Amino acid sequence: MSTYVLVHGAWHTGALFEAVAQPIRDAGHIVHCPTIRGNNPGDPRTTGLDAAIASIAEFLDSNDLDDVILLGHSYGGMVITGVADRVPNRIRRLIYWNAFVPNNGECLNDMVPPHYVDLFDAVSSESPDNSVMLPFPIWREAFINDGSAELAQSSYDQLNAHPYATFTDPISLSANPAEMQIGKSFINCTEDTALPQSLGWHPRLSEKLGLFRLVQIPGSHELCFTDPDALAAAIMDAGRD
Amino acid sequence: MSTYVLVHGAWHTGALFEAVAQPIRDAGHIVHCPTIRGNNPGDPRTTGLDAAIASIAEFLDSNDLDDVILLGHSYGGMVITGVADRVPNRIRRLIYWNAFVPNNGECLNDMVPPHYVDLFDAVSSESPDNSVMLPFPIWREAFINDGSAELAQSSYDQLNAHPYATFTDPISLSANPAEMQIGKSFINCTEDTALPQSLGWHPRLSEKLGLFRLVQIPGSHELCFTDPDALAAAIMDAGRD
Amino acid sequence: MSTYVLVHGAWHTGALFEAVAQPIRDAGHIVHCPTIRGNNPGDPRTTGLDAAIASIAEFLDSNDLDDVILLGHSYGGMVITGVADRVPNRIRRLIYWNAFVPNNGECLNDMVPPHYVDLFDAVSSESPDNSVMLPFPIWREAFINDGSAELAQSSYDQLNAHPYATFTDPISLSANPAEMQIGKSFINCTEDTALPQSLGWHPRLSEKLGLFRLVQIPGSHELCFTDPDALAAAIMDAGRD
Repeated sequence: MSTYVLVHGAWHTGALFEAVAQPIRDAGHIVHCPTIRGNNPGDPRTTGLDAAIASIAEFLDSNDLDDVILLGHSYGGMVITGVADRVPNRIRRLIYWNAFVPNNGECLNDMVPPHYVDLFDAVSSESPDNSVMLPFPIWREAFINDGSAELAQSSYDQLNAHPYATFTDPISLSANPAEMQIGKSFINCTEDTALPQSLGWHPRLSEKLGLFRLVQIPGSHELCFTDPDALAAAIMDAGRD
Repeated sequence: MSTYVLVHGAWHTGALFEAVAQPIRDAGHIVHCPTIRGNNPGDPRTTGLDAAIASIAEFLDSNDLDDVILLGHSYGGMVITGVADRVPNRIRRLIYWNAFVPNNGECLNDMVPPHYVDLFDAVSSESPDNSVMLPFPIWREAFINDGSAELAQSSYDQLNAHPYATFTDPISLSANPAEMQIGKSFINCTEDTALPQSLGWHPRLSEKLGLFRLVQIPGSHELCFTDPDALAAAIMDAGRD
Repeated sequence: MSTYVLVHGAWHTGALFEAVAQPIRDAGHIVHCPTIRGNNPGDPRTTGLDAAIASIAEFLDSNDLDDVILLGHSYGGMVITGVADRVPNRIRRLIYWNAFVPNNGECLNDMVPPHYVDLFDAVSSESPDNSVMLPFPIWREAFINDGSAELAQSSYDQLNAHPYATFTDPISLSANPAEMQIGKSFINCTEDTALPQSLGWHPRLSEKLGLFRLVQIPGSHELCFTDPDALAAAIMDAGRD
């Protein structure tokens, strides 16, 4: 029996991971799905990356979780990398699911194509609180390309405006991920076009992990909605010793 | 219920898409499989790209088809791009299935590796009418690599000599595909080696579409022969809203 | 009915291919799984590439095998390329399964990333007989990433120290693989990270074959352990005419 902590991506909350958590629990494991500070309903959208990382580190501390298999999705890769640097003794293995892998001093926007940075800059500057939302056409075509129109809409309706500072704040790490002495896995959904595949998640970002275990499955960036059972199986393959 | 128009590739005819059309019809849609001018039995093999494009635009006009989901396979990508430029109001979405995506002024040969251009130049210059045929060993190993020897032969026997001018004529467009305000999908068969995968269909050509929906499935360039049901399912995923 | 000869990779023996051979035999074919000189229990670990190649060529000769479908896995690609150059008349088709494809004058280490060469140099220099062993963490994470911890361990326990000269000896060929007038197939396991996928097996090495047939399947570098039935099916698709 292992303890999994699933850390969501931008615009999501922990609750949106519950359909993935259930089959992992059914297999006998403990699964937590916390929401990162800045994505809870009442949180200020001015939250920065440091506070976001701290909120998950505090979650592990306050629940006294050890030997944790810590998964991050997308933006969640920034968060789990920071958490692993702060509380390494609580973590057994990191799993990056189509997630950003930062080295010390990098911000999320450093790993994103320029046209997305331009879009985020424009959207956030028009918001009252430096937050960003993803336009629906991008969500439907490039994020949840394997879902029906109905699922694309119903999932979009559950997203929340994201604190843009977490994309522009550089991360502060005492060691880059490749140097971390900890198990590392990368789950790559082969139809994920949230990043263009010419500037994609794997192997461009995954290989920043150094030695890591690759698990690959069909699906989009939003497999948590389109096939949570398949994602849960991949997570257990990625998380086992 | 949607209206699909499936536009074949070089050496093929519309009739060779019928096995793919059937399961789409069974799901309640209307499907047309026209043959491009230059590939009909009696057509002169000196047909150029402009006449090829015109023949499909005229097909949509003469059948008064609207809200069309227009698919092009391989060379058919040249044709549907031209059709979308000429009769945009008739089209709901373009689907490129391992297809060429031209910008204004490009010809098909601009997107093909030099050794294929050399081969096509040689074969066409030896023909009486500037037509090209694909040598069987290339068909068997690089186009229909997932089929049996028997299927490779029986499908090859149904191909026709292709008008080479359609590979060398530059396309004339008022806007490049990335600028077209229309839904766009790309179906990529992951074992397609009709173009070498180091200079392949996706993401090299697909990303010329700008925002597009990726659908990926196992199979070769000739999945229309080797698994028409799987291709039909992919087309419906690519074609839905 | 065809005759298959399966040539294993570094650290393996022919016996480790028996679970793959069985379903091919069940389909009516003859399958041989010889062990390359240098990997048998009693062989000196100072064996070089030339002797390794000679041992498989001699196996074909002494068993008077003709029309052979000759498969090489990983390092076995060096061996079958040399065998095809020496006894071309005995061979119907070559199958490279995530295997090295050398041109004349290349050694295996020429196709491997520098950090692996450094590792092999260090390990072999500490051995009594210029042999190399693969550290278990690399085996578990990068070679058999799709297996359970138990299978990773039990398979590792069956490996043997490998003669390092076979990685550093350049191969001597009268013609490069692309020029060989013989059928050629490449099986690519899509989750194979034994080579980093940014410097991977396919298409980087496969395209050195010239015209070849691609067969792709899910799985790691060690699918012979994790799913021998799926590998056997892929081998028969790759080996048929």
